[in-house]
Amino acid sequence: MLENVDLTKKMSKEEYDNVIEELTINIGELQRKAWKMGIPIMIVFEGWHASGMTDIINRFLLTLNPMGCDLYTTGKPCYQEELKPLLWRFWTKIPNAGRIAIFDRSWYRRAIIEHNSKGRADKDMSKCLDGLTYFERQLTDGGYLLIKFFLHISKEEQNKRYTSLKKKGIPLFIVEEEEQEYINDYARYLPLIEGILERTDRASAPWSIVESDDMNFSTIKILAKTIESIENKISDVENERKLASGKHNESCVIPNIDSSILGKVDLDKSLTYKEYKKEKKACQKKIAQLQYELFKNRIPLVIVFEGWDASGKGGSIRRLAQKLNPRLYRVTPIGVPTRSELAHHYLWRFYNEIPEAGHIGIYDRSWYGRVLVERVEDLCNMHEWKRAYREINEFEETLANYGTIVIKFWTHIDREEQLKRFKQREATPHKQWKITSDDWRNRDKWKLYLEAADEMLQKTSTSWAPWTIVEANDKYYARIRILKTVIERIEEELKERGLQ
Amino acid sequence: MLENVDLTKKMSKEEYDNVIEELTINIGELQRKAWKMGIPIMIVFEGWHASGMTDIINRFLLTLNPMGCDLYTTGKPCYQEELKPLLWRFWTKIPNAGRIAIFDRSWYRRAIIEHNSKGRADKDMSKCLDGLTYFERQLTDGGYLLIKFFLHISKEEQNKRYTSLKKKGIPLFIVEEEEQEYINDYARYLPLIEGILERTDRASAPWSIVESDDMNFSTIKILAKTIESIENKISDVENERKLASGKHNESCVIPNIDSSILGKVDLDKSLTYKEYKKEKKACQKKIAQLQYELFKNRIPLVIVFEGWDASGKGGSIRRLAQKLNPRLYRVTPIGVPTRSELAHHYLWRFYNEIPEAGHIGIYDRSWYGRVLVERVEDLCNMHEWKRAYREINEFEETLANYGTIVIKFWTHIDREEQLKRFKQREATPHKQWKITSDDWRNRDKWKLYLEAADEMLQKTSTSWAPWTIVEANDKYYARIRILKTVIERIEEELKERGLQ
Repeated sequence: MLENVDLTKKMSKEEYDNVIEELTINIGELQRKAWKMGIPIMIVFEGWHASGMTDIINRFLLTLNPMGCDLYTTGKPCYQEELKPLLWRFWTKIPNAGRIAIFDRSWYRRAIIEHNSKGRADKDMSKCLDGLTYFERQLTDGGYLLIKFFLHISKEEQNKRYTSLKKKGIPLFIVEEEEQEYINDYARYLPLIEGILERTDRASAPWSIVESDDMNFSTIKILAKTIESIENKISDVENERKLASGKHNESCVIPNIDSSILGKVDLDKSLTYKEYKKEKKACQKKIAQLQYELFKNRIPLVIVFEGWDASGKGGSIRRLAQKLNPRLYRVTPIGVPTRSELAHHYLWRFYNEIPEAGHIGIYDRSWYGRVLVERVEDLCNMHEWKRAYREINEFEETLANYGTIVIKFWTHIDREEQLKRFKQREATPHKQWKITSDDWRNRDKWKLYLEAADEMLQKTSTSWAPWTIVEANDKYYARIRILKTVIERIEEELKERGLQ
Repeated sequence: MLENVDLTKKMSKEEYDNVIEELTINIGELQRKAWKMGIPIMIVFEGWHASGMTDIINRFLLTLNPMGCDLYTTGKPCYQEELKPLLWRFWTKIPNAGRIAIFDRSWYRRAIIEHNSKGRADKDMSKCLDGLTYFERQLTDGGYLLIKFFLHISKEEQNKRYTSLKKKGIPLFIVEEEEQEYINDYARYLPLIEGILERTDRASAPWSIVESDDMNFSTIKILAKTIESIENKISDVENERKLASGKHNESCVIPNIDSSILGKVDLDKSLTYKEYKKEKKACQKKIAQLQYELFKNRIPLVIVFEGWDASGKGGSIRRLAQKLNPRLYRVTPIGVPTRSELAHHYLWRFYNEIPEAGHIGIYDRSWYGRVLVERVEDLCNMHEWKRAYREINEFEETLANYGTIVIKFWTHIDREEQLKRFKQREATPHKQWKITSDDWRNRDKWKLYLEAADEMLQKTSTSWAPWTIVEANDKYYARIRILKTVIERIEEELKERGLQ
């Protein structure tokens, strides 16, 4: 993509002054329109060192209303960022509906620096690029407009600029050790970057190569391209909305799941109180020890609890956490999303909450809400929840690739047991707050939830994040089953990684 | 406060098991009640090393509903945190209405480590403690419940525990170099801590000393104390609300400001376009250079723009930013607060937005909204905006103590000029969006705004953050005045600090 670019393009000061004002008015109008329509926009600036990115971004920025946009400068990760997967840094920065986020260098630069320069295996870089592709596809599928610019200059021009910068004494901002190679070895990086640009140039998020020898020309090209992209996006969204308002009742064919997984669960398993007490003590002690192994080895652990209302998720989580160090674990209950969460891609809130390396994140309900409650209660449309199986698998794959252990429990009870527990709750004064009309309403939709859970278990049990179905009619049995599964899985993983 | 504490208090396992359940039910109810009433709660745990804080916090945490609380472990600041004043780390973590934030060590520990151990001057520690007092008073004045525990053990007990911990091989989490002294020199720190506890033990945020030789006893004491504090707070708030619903029309006596500052401004000052062009170019070049001086010397700069609608704030900001490096400045427009912002102390959103050391934060409207629009439009009550003068001065003092240069502009025009500009906007298609019925409404309240602005200028012009009133009937004159003031102020500060 970079080979035959004509780098001689120029624009005079007069020409620039003539068009800049008009384009500024133009982009201002589009920004307000996108804001009203709730279209989130991400604009990525990548390019060679000394390609003039800083000045170009400033010129670009000044055409926008600062009320609706954010600039993120991507540099070396800080300590906290190093303890999370690469994409976390960018997921947490995606704009909410209507805003524009501008990335002054991005996941591409970081991927190159962190997965290539350090002499890692090619496989690692390739996996990383898969992750970036997931990220971008998930965003554009979710309604985000993604505009990507690569500022291109020739090696000769770069050298000329280095000399002139040096003369002027302007400090270079990202002269971290790790970037030295990229800064100084244009020839080595040319084919690498070429390959990455080709691999990540997709119809829904294409690259624009910007000839950057002349700053007037490149600024105008970027503005014009941005205007064109926003205009197209706006008209796409308008068309979609027209279409959507035409047909209201989306029909959804529920697949005939002959072999229901949950139908076969043996719910009669139980433990006596004495057995439970003894096992619990031993398991808790073991988990407390394993926690320090995870910490020492910087392995993050994600434990997901999904299951019926009143199936004992909360109680199990308390027993799991009882002997843990509170500095190393966090229980994150997932409830109704806030307004700000609704204004982002649905995975955003979960990326925000992933545990640091060495820490444990325990989730009382989770990202699976998308294919459970949101599906059953029509809180998202069919395309969205159908797409979510793949998105969730990719999300968990991203975690696993970073080294995270992902454990998922479905606590399973039958309808009779649930009824018994609901009634118990209603009869106990300090437990009444736990049971609301929502719970009874959900109960009426048992069959729909069962179908949803069954499909979820089938489609999201992966080698890197398998489900464990917990027979939970007996609380003692369920709790011990959970504790033991956690222990086994951690021990397995430590062994596999040669750490035990 | 620590001298005569009886550290021999104990509680048997049976006694503990008897009361813990009841207290858990009790605190659960209070948590839900505080949530419904929108009371934000902060609980601070401080204490000696090896006082059992980790385990006690975990026990405490398990009595709460994780849906409504957050635990923050305070350790060594990361790189980003070092680039902001100490209190920024805690301001950004204050809970929103109804939630509980628990601090596993807090601003106290950090103050001791960062302002005492490094052999700094006593004056520095004293200033820092002033800052902490501002922080806590602002919070409790703003309706926050603040509960502070100091876990106390004797030197002998501490030594015993060190030996036992060492035997068990449990890793110590905060054995950063900087904490070694605190960990090992009980005797040296005893009087220091005693002094700090006494100085910061105020009626609205008192300390509870917790005898921590026995973990059962201390857990129960903490729970009981927390319950008592929340109960008291709830009944206080109930009483306040009853009182408030009784008298609706708060009368506010506007002080008779004989010597109106704004009445004396000479608005006839002007510049020709030619003069403007020339001056602008020179000033912008100078500011771009000074920006790098600030960056090199890690000095943060805050520039506040307040002033009448259509007085040219936006245009001035654009000229100010035109030649700056976008990586080093950010324009933050302050608009209507979001729901989440409304659910916090009003200073919270501004603490979130302060610039890093070496960066420039430019504010298009600011924290002064409290004493301008919020005062005039009755968006807060009289006590709140009257209190805000002091709070704002303290906020800016906190910034200045950290080394921040604070520059504040009031862009002043007269009513006729505003009318002319409003009409111009309405007549220009691409500027129409800038003028709304709100602007006309605000214009009708000119006199009220004038009074508010006058009082603000009088009460918040401090030696560390003086106001500059900009004669802005002539745009060219105003812009150059602003650019020059910024240059002068930066140069002065650099000189004063011996950097130029």
